[in-house]
Amino acid sequence: MIQSGFLTDLYELLMVQAYLQSGLVGTAVFEFFCRNLPPNRNFLLAVGLETVLDFLQEIHFEQEGLEWLEKTGRFSSETLEYLRGFRFQGDVYAMDEGTPFFAQEPVVQVVAPLPQAQLIESRLINLLHYQILVASKAVRCRLVAKEKRLVEFGLRRAHGGEAALLAARASYAAGFDATSNVLAGRLYGIPISGTMAHSFILAHDREEDAFMAFARANRSEVVFLLDTYDTEKAAQSLAKIGPLLTREGIRIRGVRLDSGNLGEHARRVREILDSAGFHHVEIFASGNLDEHRVGELVAQSAPIDGFGVGTAMDTSSDAPYLDCAYKLQEYEGKPRRKRSEGKETWAGRKQVYRVWGRDGVASKDILALAGERVEGEPLLRPVMKDGKRLYAARPLDEIRRNVLEQLDRLPEGLRELTSSPIPYRVEISPGLASLQTHL
Amino acid sequence: MIQSGFLTDLYELLMVQAYLQSGLVGTAVFEFFCRNLPPNRNFLLAVGLETVLDFLQEIHFEQEGLEWLEKTGRFSSETLEYLRGFRFQGDVYAMDEGTPFFAQEPVVQVVAPLPQAQLIESRLINLLHYQILVASKAVRCRLVAKEKRLVEFGLRRAHGGEAALLAARASYAAGFDATSNVLAGRLYGIPISGTMAHSFILAHDREEDAFMAFARANRSEVVFLLDTYDTEKAAQSLAKIGPLLTREGIRIRGVRLDSGNLGEHARRVREILDSAGFHHVEIFASGNLDEHRVGELVAQSAPIDGFGVGTAMDTSSDAPYLDCAYKLQEYEGKPRRKRSEGKETWAGRKQVYRVWGRDGVASKDILALAGERVEGEPLLRPVMKDGKRLYAARPLDEIRRNVLEQLDRLPEGLRELTSSPIPYRVEISPGLASLQTHL
Repeated sequence: MIQSGFLTDLYELLMVQAYLQSGLVGTAVFEFFCRNLPPNRNFLLAVGLETVLDFLQEIHFEQEGLEWLEKTGRFSSETLEYLRGFRFQGDVYAMDEGTPFFAQEPVVQVVAPLPQAQLIESRLINLLHYQILVASKAVRCRLVAKEKRLVEFGLRRAHGGEAALLAARASYAAGFDATSNVLAGRLYGIPISGTMAHSFILAHDREEDAFMAFARANRSEVVFLLDTYDTEKAAQSLAKIGPLLTREGIRIRGVRLDSGNLGEHARRVREILDSAGFHHVEIFASGNLDEHRVGELVAQSAPIDGFGVGTAMDTSSDAPYLDCAYKLQEYEGKPRRKRSEGKETWAGRKQVYRVWGRDGVASKDILALAGERVEGEPLLRPVMKDGKRLYAARPLDEIRRNVLEQLDRLPEGLRELTSSPIPYRVEISPGLASLQTHL
Repeated sequence: MIQSGFLTDLYELLMVQAYLQSGLVGTAVFEFFCRNLPPNRNFLLAVGLETVLDFLQEIHFEQEGLEWLEKTGRFSSETLEYLRGFRFQGDVYAMDEGTPFFAQEPVVQVVAPLPQAQLIESRLINLLHYQILVASKAVRCRLVAKEKRLVEFGLRRAHGGEAALLAARASYAAGFDATSNVLAGRLYGIPISGTMAHSFILAHDREEDAFMAFARANRSEVVFLLDTYDTEKAAQSLAKIGPLLTREGIRIRGVRLDSGNLGEHARRVREILDSAGFHHVEIFASGNLDEHRVGELVAQSAPIDGFGVGTAMDTSSDAPYLDCAYKLQEYEGKPRRKRSEGKETWAGRKQVYRVWGRDGVASKDILALAGERVEGEPLLRPVMKDGKRLYAARPLDEIRRNVLEQLDRLPEGLRELTSSPIPYRVEISPGLASLQTHL
């Protein structure tokens, strides 16, 4: 992860220079939220918080960059000194990582001296936006895939290397089982998974030779790619060499189908494998899959045990960005309200309350002023004080369990791929409403 | 940039293990190409090559990762030793960075021992795919913006930090003038540009105070954001304080409009500024802009001097990924052809020839076998030999000039935002066609 403070928009530095010169260094409250949900999303998942806390603990302005910045001639020695000594020392309140949330609800709230809260804006949004985006897409795959295995493998078409890492993290948090990304496996402790590429088959004169060579070199967890020439013929040749490989102590885990009518191929391949006694060999499907294709294949009861999802998820292709913002809501105790056309915000420092029904299912949320007494469970909790984490970084597996539990506590209509006819209710509290009238 | 070899898909490592065990270490030819163009794209721009060459020169498998990999129990000591000593030592042929290209045309060709050419696959695609994607979107903005100023500022909604850096690089290469991304400015020498955020205005009790404070702290290149409360009133208050600031030696560069009907606001703000004698103060527009909105505003002759383009470009929102691939085309001199349904490729090691008309405009391309004699200028040139660059890294400004020159040499229909009724012709050479028949 890039932790340089220079990964920011120039305007943050220009504003900090002005804040320092005017002495505007009082306490500011900024909130990160999404103005609205993309089409077909009934909720978003708050994923990325630990990554943000890492960033806040590590952000710094390195010497080399400061020298470069000085040469631009736009910064005073006071500003440069400030950046040189910069450490984030603010407080952070946030929803637990893995919490479903809705439009207008603050997910992360930063309470810090104005220049500090401002300086972290660009990268904080950058880290949160993408992970929420991917997790909110990944969870849709999980909802339709039911108990089937889901593997993230979008590295090649993710937008850059960091996106690939963050996509592996966010999709695992949202219920995926593994990633193909080796570095993500190492950094985040995500199980890694891999088969073979068409090039491997093509490099051999005969497909069967390729299968044998791959199996003998790898021996366990072996997954064969079947569609380089003819999927069913490849399954037959595997059925033929399978017993030999088994005798050699090689563990064939499965086969992968990557093109054509996946449901049809899976049925025929299942028959071929079963006839040869390879009932335990699993069938994985891949190739331009997204939550809709996965859902169709599961609904057809195609005999597919697992799915590889890559490009569509890592780019969130049907909704490649969120309308999210990080806005100043309060400065030195006074609420602030922007009135730009079409971009009005709910001013004031807020809290989100979730009201649970007797069945343990969420019945509504209330967007209220922080400190206002309303019913429900407050979702924003203190996670950082004076720049220090209030608890050890939460393991990704714990976040993943939290997501899966939270899904069960969402109203059923929200768990569909299309917009729920009854959208989830987010009420505005009396205190928050009357504040807007007064401003 | 992440240069760790572990930023790869597990299957690359599994295949390498098998190649090494079977002694498949002969020379392979892989080609990176796009199977087809996204909707409304008449061409793509080959951007990202220098980044790929940096990666090939620096890729390595660090000790910490090797120890981790060993613990997975899936790799032999021979494979681990191979990775430990890994350096890319192959040859690379590529189109000049900034060259327009079309479906099926190889953009980068790697000629290297099979395990080497295989190992670099995932990251090579990751780096090229995204930069081509962004550059091909950015160039559309440049085509409609004509001579107006274009600034990239998509950091916050780019997919991760590396994407933000690469988007700044790719869009500048494709004709943008500046970026808001400070680190990108430093790393790539791109001019940086910045205004102020709404939070800056909101932190002050009065908008006028905010303007004064910002101007006095920054003094030159000052750009005021006008739409926090009421765009025209903000312009009037600027007209009022402008003379004072000017007397103080402050250089007001411009104003930024970020919401509402940008064309209308620009007209009214222009009038207000002109009446106050501020003819030199430029008007910048931003807020959900893409090439279509920029094109409309330019077509309406809105008095806008520059545009900030962010999210739509950095996520290539209308086409967030390309159908690109990196495929084995030849192994030990023998052409290889995949036959997966719907994914057939043109087998064999290839060259792309561009045929120029007398007017200097490209008239067609010919996709041919490498070494086949056909008319036209060969576009794939040697850029790396035995893992070493054949020339110093090309400066980004030179690449940018190349793009702008190449644009003038494209048939006019291709420079429109919609699909050209006459698509550009890419012929298959007799040699390449007959090879496919023989395979």
